Amino acid sequence: MRPSGRKTDEMRAVSIETGITRHAEGSCLIRVGDTHVICTATVDEKVPPFLRNSGLGWVTAEYGMLPRATTTRMRREAAAGKQGGRTVEIQRLIGRSLRAGVDRVALGERQITVDCDVIQADGGTRCASITGGWVALRLAVDKLMKAGAVTVDPLEIPVSAVSCGIYAGQPVLDLDYPEDSEAGVDGNFVMAGDRLIEVQMSAEGATFSRGEMDALLDLAVTGSAALSAAQLAATGR
Amino acid sequence: MRPSGRKTDEMRAVSIETGITRHAEGSCLIRVGDTHVICTATVDEKVPPFLRNSGLGWVTAEYGMLPRATTTRMRREAAAGKQGGRTVEIQRLIGRSLRAGVDRVALGERQITVDCDVIQADGGTRCASITGGWVALRLAVDKLMKAGAVTVDPLEIPVSAVSCGIYAGQPVLDLDYPEDSEAGVDGNFVMAGDRLIEVQMSAEGATFSRGEMDALLDLAVTGSAALSAAQLAATGR
Amino acid sequence: MRPSGRKTDEMRAVSIETGITRHAEGSCLIRVGDTHVICTATVDEKVPPFLRNSGLGWVTAEYGMLPRATTTRMRREAAAGKQGGRTVEIQRLIGRSLRAGVDRVALGERQITVDCDVIQADGGTRCASITGGWVALRLAVDKLMKAGAVTVDPLEIPVSAVSCGIYAGQPVLDLDYPEDSEAGVDGNFVMAGDRLIEVQMSAEGATFSRGEMDALLDLAVTGSAALSAAQLAATGR
Amino acid sequence: MRPSGRKTDEMRAVSIETGITRHAEGSCLIRVGDTHVICTATVDEKVPPFLRNSGLGWVTAEYGMLPRATTTRMRREAAAGKQGGRTVEIQRLIGRSLRAGVDRVALGERQITVDCDVIQADGGTRCASITGGWVALRLAVDKLMKAGAVTVDPLEIPVSAVSCGIYAGQPVLDLDYPEDSEAGVDGNFVMAGDRLIEVQMSAEGATFSRGEMDALLDLAVTGSAALSAAQLAATGR
Amino acid sequence: MRPSGRKTDEMRAVSIETGITRHAEGSCLIRVGDTHVICTATVDEKVPPFLRNSGLGWVTAEYGMLPRATTTRMRREAAAGKQGGRTVEIQRLIGRSLRAGVDRVALGERQITVDCDVIQADGGTRCASITGGWVALRLAVDKLMKAGAVTVDPLEIPVSAVSCGIYAGQPVLDLDYPEDSEAGVDGNFVMAGDRLIEVQMSAEGATFSRGEMDALLDLAVTGSAALSAAQLAATGR
Amino acid sequence: MRPSGRKTDEMRAVSIETGITRHAEGSCLIRVGDTHVICTATVDEKVPPFLRNSGLGWVTAEYGMLPRATTTRMRREAAAGKQGGRTVEIQRLIGRSLRAGVDRVALGERQITVDCDVIQADGGTRCASITGGWVALRLAVDKLMKAGAVTVDPLEIPVSAVSCGIYAGQPVLDLDYPEDSEAGVDGNFVMAGDRLIEVQMSAEGATFSRGEMDALLDLAVTGSAALSAAQLAATGR
Repeated sequence: MRPSGRKTDEMRAVSIETGITRHAEGSCLIRVGDTHVICTATVDEKVPPFLRNSGLGWVTAEYGMLPRATTTRMRREAAAGKQGGRTVEIQRLIGRSLRAGVDRVALGERQITVDCDVIQADGGTRCASITGGWVALRLAVDKLMKAGAVTVDPLEIPVSAVSCGIYAGQPVLDLDYPEDSEAGVDGNFVMAGDRLIEVQMSAEGATFSRGEMDALLDLAVTGSAALSAAQLAATGR
Repeated sequence: MRPSGRKTDEMRAVSIETGITRHAEGSCLIRVGDTHVICTATVDEKVPPFLRNSGLGWVTAEYGMLPRATTTRMRREAAAGKQGGRTVEIQRLIGRSLRAGVDRVALGERQITVDCDVIQADGGTRCASITGGWVALRLAVDKLMKAGAVTVDPLEIPVSAVSCGIYAGQPVLDLDYPEDSEAGVDGNFVMAGDRLIEVQMSAEGATFSRGEMDALLDLAVTGSAALSAAQLAATGR
Repeated sequence: MRPSGRKTDEMRAVSIETGITRHAEGSCLIRVGDTHVICTATVDEKVPPFLRNSGLGWVTAEYGMLPRATTTRMRREAAAGKQGGRTVEIQRLIGRSLRAGVDRVALGERQITVDCDVIQADGGTRCASITGGWVALRLAVDKLMKAGAVTVDPLEIPVSAVSCGIYAGQPVLDLDYPEDSEAGVDGNFVMAGDRLIEVQMSAEGATFSRGEMDALLDLAVTGSAALSAAQLAATGR
Repeated sequence: MRPSGRKTDEMRAVSIETGITRHAEGSCLIRVGDTHVICTATVDEKVPPFLRNSGLGWVTAEYGMLPRATTTRMRREAAAGKQGGRTVEIQRLIGRSLRAGVDRVALGERQITVDCDVIQADGGTRCASITGGWVALRLAVDKLMKAGAVTVDPLEIPVSAVSCGIYAGQPVLDLDYPEDSEAGVDGNFVMAGDRLIEVQMSAEGATFSRGEMDALLDLAVTGSAALSAAQLAATGR
Repeated sequence: MRPSGRKTDEMRAVSIETGITRHAEGSCLIRVGDTHVICTATVDEKVPPFLRNSGLGWVTAEYGMLPRATTTRMRREAAAGKQGGRTVEIQRLIGRSLRAGVDRVALGERQITVDCDVIQADGGTRCASITGGWVALRLAVDKLMKAGAVTVDPLEIPVSAVSCGIYAGQPVLDLDYPEDSEAGVDGNFVMAGDRLIEVQMSAEGATFSRGEMDALLDLAVTGSAALSAAQLAATGR
Repeated sequence: MRPSGRKTDEMRAVSIETGITRHAEGSCLIRVGDTHVICTATVDEKVPPFLRNSGLGWVTAEYGMLPRATTTRMRREAAAGKQGGRTVEIQRLIGRSLRAGVDRVALGERQITVDCDVIQADGGTRCASITGGWVALRLAVDKLMKAGAVTVDPLEIPVSAVSCGIYAGQPVLDLDYPEDSEAGVDGNFVMAGDRLIEVQMSAEGATFSRGEMDALLDLAVTGSAALSAAQLAATGR
């Protein structure tokens, strides 16, 4: 029995509200259950030094949490003077995941920075960030295409992510915080359609079999399809 | 003529939505025109070392901006490795302002941390943070009183803040960003009822007379009354 | 009764000794009672990036305290690895205040950095820094004019600053440390002649009326006139 | 054809030299081809604060590279003033991986810190660090058991890691640097016997199918068995 | 011929003004020619953790330079966010040197921190800091003895320091900045009477013979005697 | 009697293994008894800004210790976020020492960075770093000469370093850790043939006479000759 009463293959309610800030080229507020993340995409006509005159674009990401997004207040990273290891790991994952779904030649020599800031956390913030981050990216690219700066669409199909884990002996889809803190084995699955982009499975103080891994992958495929549909709906496709 | 078409003594629309996050003891999203700030209040039963065994409470504040709250993206302070001078100055102001309206004996030996995070900026973010921060503080104190942890109300009347400045030769109330970036003289006025808590007037590359200062103070009194009413309404008083 | 026996509108003794270091383009040691600050002005023919090719000059300031300028030793900020919030706030104030009295076109595209280092503190260090900083700036500009690098004088009238507060129920001029640590309400007033540049009034755990604010402003006008006279005398005008 | 001439399922030569430093409780120099890593294990009778009085032990890891372990010199992280994102990500992975193979009750309330310092890099440094780190850990635990401080062996079977990827369209085992820098899809597989501990598959600018993932997992199982044999031999089992 | 016209064994004029700040337990302004350093000594009844309950005292030192103590302005270390290598090296030398002249049992379990802040630099700032630092230390100890907190004098004979070098082929005493910047070989000699405490000779891009080293040591003995006399006179002995 | 049973003028066994890493232009592992240091030299065709277009080369050094090179684990400096004072002092010494033996005109406008990383420490790590660092430098220069990039040999005779101290009342050569931690007086002597480059003698809580200094210098001459022979043998001269 899941704490939320959900079925093992049931995702939390997903909503994606777009255009939530005036300034960003693309933005959304994604809600996956009680996990709420603001995602914005900023277009910059300059690329990092290693790409100058390459003709290739770049997509990068940054991640943060409001101090009281969590049950107890966390120290503000700006005040602590550095981003923690978890933050660094997550924002590198978001960047890699989104880049995998981009045709960097079609994007042209410009950079898009996706910022994901968690307003409220209930497990799965990195997955919600990837899913919402793609929506912000999509909207920023739409704007570039409308303006004629980009002519071939550099984004094919949505990139989304979901976490699955073994909770109380059962493979379950889309872990919330009570499940996540109990699961010995869990994984984050980043997908584009039926293709995989990133699989991160780990076992805190435990191990898992290939069979268990396959069961979680099966769930991830289900979740990813639902998320992609929400992403397409939110971006008017 | 103001860029927004407002009259010289007309504030922007103010809305305060409370209870916007599950975890914080008090929270709100304050919107003053296009300036949107999430404010949360966290109660901690431990005070800073200099107050241990004093019987006195403490209120402190932290301030941040999402990177794309502004027209162009600003570097994330956590990534830069430190809070900028402007941030430090603002969060010290918020803390002092809120403390001025608190009976620290009645609060008892505990600390409340108010976090103000700007989601979207259009001028006056520090003032909106103080006004919304008081609401979050009020709700957290209400919770403490309801639980019996605090018996005498440590908050009397709302603390609010508004900026005024001389724009195109005219004293105007509640500067938005286009006005703020043009105004040679402006000020932030923190008030509790008809009493002043903090006055910060400055002239970037200019000077001002006592008469001009008085005109801005007159406007601030008007604005403060409107904000207090909104604060009381939002907190059900 | 003031601890020092001064009358309510009586400043401490002010002395300004110029040319106290061989290397700086302008320098002085300002003593306001037992508050002693070394101020130096450094001319740099390069401006910050945001002003390149603008034809405009820039004036900026930095502030520091020797570790044992105070009653108990404070941690050295260089050892702590960052400037504290109070330091950042003060040096921003000094820079803004001095810039307000400079014709940046006449100064030409160069930067002057004013360093204010407190040797001994007894209240009012930021005000003494502004007053002494202007003297150092004046001397550095004199040198530029003598060398023919600047032809129109970019400094009109002295910029000075004084603190006033309500001590033991009485508005008093030029707070020393024993008064400052007791005063619930105090303010720093930066003036150029009878014009205001910056007003910072605050109430630590208290509030104040407009009448009280006016009383402090009246005192500030008196103090500012005395400081300007000392500044002009020190710079041979 | 692989640049090294290896077969697709052929690992590089592995050697593990133990006892390479006098001071550490456990140590080895692991060489996987031209990737050389010094691993040491330090026993500390104190656990981190969150485990005090829990009766549980802890294993953590830190990772570094000598500046000239790589083809071109990298900036020393101590001089840069912080550990880079890649370093943080890797040392968190090493710590999690080793912990998964430890019975923390049997270890008792003490901490073992495993330091992995790369002397020479040619791809696969994180995997070599995990494999060598387990050897250092094993030796440190042996010492604790010999001294009677630990009575039930907290380590069951070796934890090892290997990277696999799709190079020139072929799934290959144990990527070296020339392969790693070309492979669009690769993964790190941490295993204990036939059980998985961590799977990290990613695609830089590409995607992969479940079939490809299975092929890499098959290779990983082969590699892991070879590494475990080397670990057992090195530790005299 | 020395730039200053001094003889090869002639020191610059030395003056030591004591009691220059109200707050410190001991203080002086030492002037060695145009090198001016403010030295203060702070007594703290707490020792560093490694000395708790040892019965032994500790003396430590910190060193700084005002940004415009030098010909061109140096970046403020507090703003740079760390103390430079030269600063760290110098303050460690000052601390070691002063400790060598202290009977730490007689001092008792307390710490004295000596701060040396260079107001104006013209070569030899570390030597002037040691010489002046001892005076501040002496005065602070006198105060402790007068108060009865220390009964056996922990300071025997003055610790002083002087630099010597080979300038234009000649061994010369007490290098000023023009000499120091030209000298290929120079040394800092810390002495207590005719005993040595620290000798630091170095050759920037050159080497030296034992004969040259002896010649510099002979000069240092002369200089040290003169400095000791000044130290004793300044402290009323 | 020395703890190791060595005679007072007996060095520890010295071995220098060259070419220990594939990537660096020059490298060695130097072992002086139980002190083991990896030294690498990296050639960079760019010089620091202050030398651009000067025609002069530069040699600089960095120093580090693996966390468990010592009896108890030291905190990793990269994790602590800065290099400690001791590290900074040592790497500055290594750089100055090596530069003293280089003809910077002959080297030409390029920089060589020598990295010294201590794998195992038993006293004298800075001396071993200088001695081994010169070997790495020699090999890198040989490579430049072989390639025709440098035509006149910029290195004449080896630069080496040894520590001597007064242990149990006796002057002894080449202190190991048990001696070093007991010696009240010790020194590091950097030499090139019979010429001195750097002498650093210090007394922790003690003083020394010129006679004692001379005795240590005599020992250093002996040690330096042995080290030079080892350096020449290792580099095939």
